[in-house]
Amino acid sequence: MTTGARRRMGVEERRDQLIAVALGLFSHRAPEDVSIDEIAEAAGISRPLVYHYFPGKQQLYEAALRRAAEELAARFVEPHEGPLGARLLRVMERFFDFVDEHGPGFSALMRGGPAIGSTRTSALIDGVRQAAYEQILAHLALTDPPPRLELVVRSWISLAETTALLWLDGRRVPRAELERQLVHDFAALAAVSAAYDDRMAGIVRRILADEPADGMFADLVGRLMALPQPV
Amino acid sequence: MTTGARRRMGVEERRDQLIAVALGLFSHRAPEDVSIDEIAEAAGISRPLVYHYFPGKQQLYEAALRRAAEELAARFVEPHEGPLGARLLRVMERFFDFVDEHGPGFSALMRGGPAIGSTRTSALIDGVRQAAYEQILAHLALTDPPPRLELVVRSWISLAETTALLWLDGRRVPRAELERQLVHDFAALAAVSAAYDDRMAGIVRRILADEPADGMFADLVGRLMALPQPV
Repeated sequence: MTTGARRRMGVEERRDQLIAVALGLFSHRAPEDVSIDEIAEAAGISRPLVYHYFPGKQQLYEAALRRAAEELAARFVEPHEGPLGARLLRVMERFFDFVDEHGPGFSALMRGGPAIGSTRTSALIDGVRQAAYEQILAHLALTDPPPRLELVVRSWISLAETTALLWLDGRRVPRAELERQLVHDFAALAAVSAAYDDRMAGIVRRILADEPADGMFADLVGRLMALPQPV
Repeated sequence: MTTGARRRMGVEERRDQLIAVALGLFSHRAPEDVSIDEIAEAAGISRPLVYHYFPGKQQLYEAALRRAAEELAARFVEPHEGPLGARLLRVMERFFDFVDEHGPGFSALMRGGPAIGSTRTSALIDGVRQAAYEQILAHLALTDPPPRLELVVRSWISLAETTALLWLDGRRVPRAELERQLVHDFAALAAVSAAYDDRMAGIVRRILADEPADGMFADLVGRLMALPQPV
């Protein structure tokens, strides 16, 4: 044993450590399958001491999922530079990094589950979804989005969530393929909406104008925009 | 008062009535905002008698949401006749009929919420999603779907859910437009996946072969299939 490992930690430092330990365990098993005893052992402290820092299992698990939600939301932040398709692809890569690292912890965050109450999990994940939505709107430089754009962006976020959850269940498709596909899916959903609405068509054309000829969107969306209006 | 309305109901009949009354109220307000007193009054019986048929509020609300889930799943059943795009459009029309009729009850079913436990709501909605998935696979006549098709179908189901929930929040886009768009979204997501995978390309081509030249899919997917492979 080293002096460094055994030194007395402050309250916030110890809470941070317990949250980190919990998230580490949640990256391999679902939160409801991880006991406080295991967290105490992995942290090198006694079970009663865990309860000194968190009044109950639910409080610790909720703090851990809140930390995970904050980390996930932070990965959506991307500089406003370069083509939108390339920005979106970098965000998708960081999103799948997070999903890959957190595994069952990500599923617990997205699906809720018995470990913490549904209302609190829903509030956490709604916050993550809102952060994703606001980031995308900021990249589109739109402060007053039309209802159809909100539908496209929010339903695409839900598509990305579902795709990541399904990918985690067996990892049967290479994640790099799904990261690229999700960027193309965004373009495809925007283009389908643009085929029904002039304002959406204008937004999609403006995005395209900034895309390079060899970019993620240009080829796919260019062909979709050539579609006639549906009958 | 008529003899018919006042005749003594059997237990199952009374339970059915209370479930129908609850769903009627949930079509205007969220389940957590509807009291047992209101359900009793609307059913024309006393509050204690409600508890004779359901041990608690949660049991009645869960029975109502289960009924709603069954009704929703039943609307996915569509004869295996005619072009796939037209079949999917008819299912989307019935889906939005359900969403329109049930309003807050649909939201409660999909989002969970405080009225009934998250684990039980999740099981109900997972059942509805599975029913939708199996119906689509049956229409595609595929018993051994490749992982990429499962991703496309399940993530599209999630897209349809989110689109319907967002539509309910203000109904700012005509539902007929969204019903058609969702069919086109299905084609677009399948086509993006087909651009990455030969087996998906084969499945999409087989669907197309059965579509009429003026059908929902033919034009949109035909152009998407002409896309080169992404770099």
